[in-house]
Amino acid sequence: MGVLVMNGKKIVIVGGGASGGTTAQFARKTDRAAHITIFEKGKYPHYSKCGLPYAIAGIVPDFLNLIEFSEEYFNKEHIELFLETTVEDIDLKRRIVIAKKGTESTSREFDALVLATGSMPMVPPIQNIQTHNRFYSGIHVLRTIDDGRSILSDIRKGKKATIIGAGLIGLEMADTLHKKGMQVTVVEALPRILANTLDDDMSDLVRETIQEHVTLYTNHFATQIKDKQGAVTHLVIKNRETNEDAAIETDLCVIATGTKPETTLAKHIGCAIGKTGGILVNENAETSVKNVYAVGDCTEYHDFVTGEPICVGFGSIGVRQGIAAGTNAAGGTYSLPKGLLMTRTSEFFGLEIAAVGPIQASLKNKTIITGKYKGSSLPDYFPGGKPITMKIHVEEPSGRILAAQAVGSNAAQRTNVYACAILNGLTVDDVRKMETTYAPPIAPTLDTLTLVGDVVALKRARKKREP
Amino acid sequence: MGVLVMNGKKIVIVGGGASGGTTAQFARKTDRAAHITIFEKGKYPHYSKCGLPYAIAGIVPDFLNLIEFSEEYFNKEHIELFLETTVEDIDLKRRIVIAKKGTESTSREFDALVLATGSMPMVPPIQNIQTHNRFYSGIHVLRTIDDGRSILSDIRKGKKATIIGAGLIGLEMADTLHKKGMQVTVVEALPRILANTLDDDMSDLVRETIQEHVTLYTNHFATQIKDKQGAVTHLVIKNRETNEDAAIETDLCVIATGTKPETTLAKHIGCAIGKTGGILVNENAETSVKNVYAVGDCTEYHDFVTGEPICVGFGSIGVRQGIAAGTNAAGGTYSLPKGLLMTRTSEFFGLEIAAVGPIQASLKNKTIITGKYKGSSLPDYFPGGKPITMKIHVEEPSGRILAAQAVGSNAAQRTNVYACAILNGLTVDDVRKMETTYAPPIAPTLDTLTLVGDVVALKRARKKREP
Repeated sequence: MGVLVMNGKKIVIVGGGASGGTTAQFARKTDRAAHITIFEKGKYPHYSKCGLPYAIAGIVPDFLNLIEFSEEYFNKEHIELFLETTVEDIDLKRRIVIAKKGTESTSREFDALVLATGSMPMVPPIQNIQTHNRFYSGIHVLRTIDDGRSILSDIRKGKKATIIGAGLIGLEMADTLHKKGMQVTVVEALPRILANTLDDDMSDLVRETIQEHVTLYTNHFATQIKDKQGAVTHLVIKNRETNEDAAIETDLCVIATGTKPETTLAKHIGCAIGKTGGILVNENAETSVKNVYAVGDCTEYHDFVTGEPICVGFGSIGVRQGIAAGTNAAGGTYSLPKGLLMTRTSEFFGLEIAAVGPIQASLKNKTIITGKYKGSSLPDYFPGGKPITMKIHVEEPSGRILAAQAVGSNAAQRTNVYACAILNGLTVDDVRKMETTYAPPIAPTLDTLTLVGDVVALKRARKKREP
Repeated sequence: MGVLVMNGKKIVIVGGGASGGTTAQFARKTDRAAHITIFEKGKYPHYSKCGLPYAIAGIVPDFLNLIEFSEEYFNKEHIELFLETTVEDIDLKRRIVIAKKGTESTSREFDALVLATGSMPMVPPIQNIQTHNRFYSGIHVLRTIDDGRSILSDIRKGKKATIIGAGLIGLEMADTLHKKGMQVTVVEALPRILANTLDDDMSDLVRETIQEHVTLYTNHFATQIKDKQGAVTHLVIKNRETNEDAAIETDLCVIATGTKPETTLAKHIGCAIGKTGGILVNENAETSVKNVYAVGDCTEYHDFVTGEPICVGFGSIGVRQGIAAGTNAAGGTYSLPKGLLMTRTSEFFGLEIAAVGPIQASLKNKTIITGKYKGSSLPDYFPGGKPITMKIHVEEPSGRILAAQAVGSNAAQRTNVYACAILNGLTVDDVRKMETTYAPPIAPTLDTLTLVGDVVALKRARKKREP
């Protein structure tokens, strides 16, 4: 820690990913004298996990480019960073964290403890997936830089790759492996891709694009790995309707079927665990244990619209929790909104998608009116306009906007308007009459953004007339 | 009108531009039996004036592509459309409009009258600009397709062009003429470009880009035209500080110094005219005269934030007024928001700009706190990120957002979030903690959109501590 004497609050952060790293930064911003320590079990400081597919694709030139805050940064900020160091024990009474790097043990006292322990890949029950406690050669998950490097080293142009799971990361990886010249198959157990991200009809729009580039099996389980001398050769999948099996030739297999929160330490010190298996936190990123905070993928908070518990799985939310935990742990005040909007976006095969709020299936306890509109990003006469489809769900009879989804041009920034609207309890009439930005090379006079609201307004007016 | 009998309300619209055309469409949507007539003095039905620079540039292949609703469309919708027909008189007592095409006179009774008479170019007092009641050859304004065609026919690659006025249209035309291979000079009487669109510091960001491509004289009046045999050869400009004159060689000159509302008919029938010279309208697009509506560039409404009168000059607003006037004139109900946001955007020389709400100079009667933030469109590690600078003005002590400006990547859609916020009276704290869409190829975890709000929040917190 150099010559500086840090005589402020002692803050220990377990986990140095984006959420933990952000916590440290905001603790430092809040208190220049705080004694801040991060224990990170991996090799690298604060890097972007979400960037891994793009480093594999070679768009981001090197995996180390994903490091957003370097060891030098943490040094400069007088934040003590231990890498490859695993926390072995937390003594809540004595307020001590004990960590180990190899045989070397380090302990730190704390006034505030922040758990940023992240999550682990969920691997479905697939026969013969492991040998000697590790995956067969060619089989991968994607959580760390080392996972990414390992996938990259297995990529062979012209060979076959299979992705298990058609969620956001699965489809990002499908695009990546396709870009690298592999023949890609995607296997999804549910009847639709992006089942947690988009409604069925919106997901079908994406499916059309995906299928131009990859082979897609929905409603199929991955059941078994076939190998030759310890290397994967086939993935056996089962049709959930017909129960028929098929063996897909594959040289590389990426499992992208979600994650589960890492909560071992949290349970050990008595933090309440929520229904989804994450550490329960409130709007201040506080756990049920005094002076213990938790941030990022290991936590559970609740949906802003439905109030249902949600396991936080987005970097954008983890970073915001880090701002709250870091500020609060260091003696400041920062509260997050009273629930998660789950604003989300991604892009694959040139198609941008975005959404905010629950999918329709999660709104079954509410009376809703739904609008959908397909427009163009530009006036019809202007060359280069791209399709943009938006869909919104509005609560009846209040008119309050509950959710929005977008597929196409500038889906993400258009969705941000709805994130703002939902967070502030605005109604469809509050939004649909706003003047949107208009210029021929940029957007039409009436944007899909508000036209989708007009669709809902028309339906509501009709409903009033014909009750 | 074919065989259909239109026995509904009689609606006469004077002017068939985008605002008048939209009025007709929404009158038809509201009442299938309304008798709707448009008198348009120009040759073309409902076309996009805003698209003219792009048709001159050749991006839009033909001027006729700018026609958004054709004569066939109006026929199909049973909307009577008279082109090249000028309204000569309105008899308010007998509710009759009398129009003339050549020597042929047509009259129509009305239950509701909609004035969509547009605006005329304002031409500054420049010596020797006209000969025999028309401009010297090579001198142009840009309001109609015929103006656009006339400019196009005067464009010569490698020759010199001068634009008078560095507002949105002036800079769009500068980009267009530059694209066509001309050497472009822009002359602006005010000390800064885009003086009504952006604050000084934001306008300076644009100036940097502009000056890479064109010669720019700010703080210079255009005073005189020099000609040779009736064709412009030089534009004389005067430095407003030093009073020095300079003669700029020019083969083509476009005057883009704004417009004034065309209100002759409105005055004739006694419609109240506002301070800005536009026809006073309310949120229903009603004028002071019963059953007479007005829409588009000929009208005056007021600023949502300051309440000050504003002469409507944006197509996007005219179209929205058209929705209101058409719906209301046909017996429906449609109210616009209680003021204009003046949401605006454009793009020149590859730079996107956007804004909503008053510029700082127009907020001098309010106590404000201002934040500015320069970020990137993508995470730092992701190649291809482009700068985006945003600035917001927030009212004290309420925290209410009053205005936002953006220069750079996706400025327009980012500004739409603030349009929504301002329209709904949201505070900076209501917006800055929203989860924005995040994915490495699309946007960073924390977007400039909300970071600019954090800047304001920090300033407000500091002000509270040190009053």
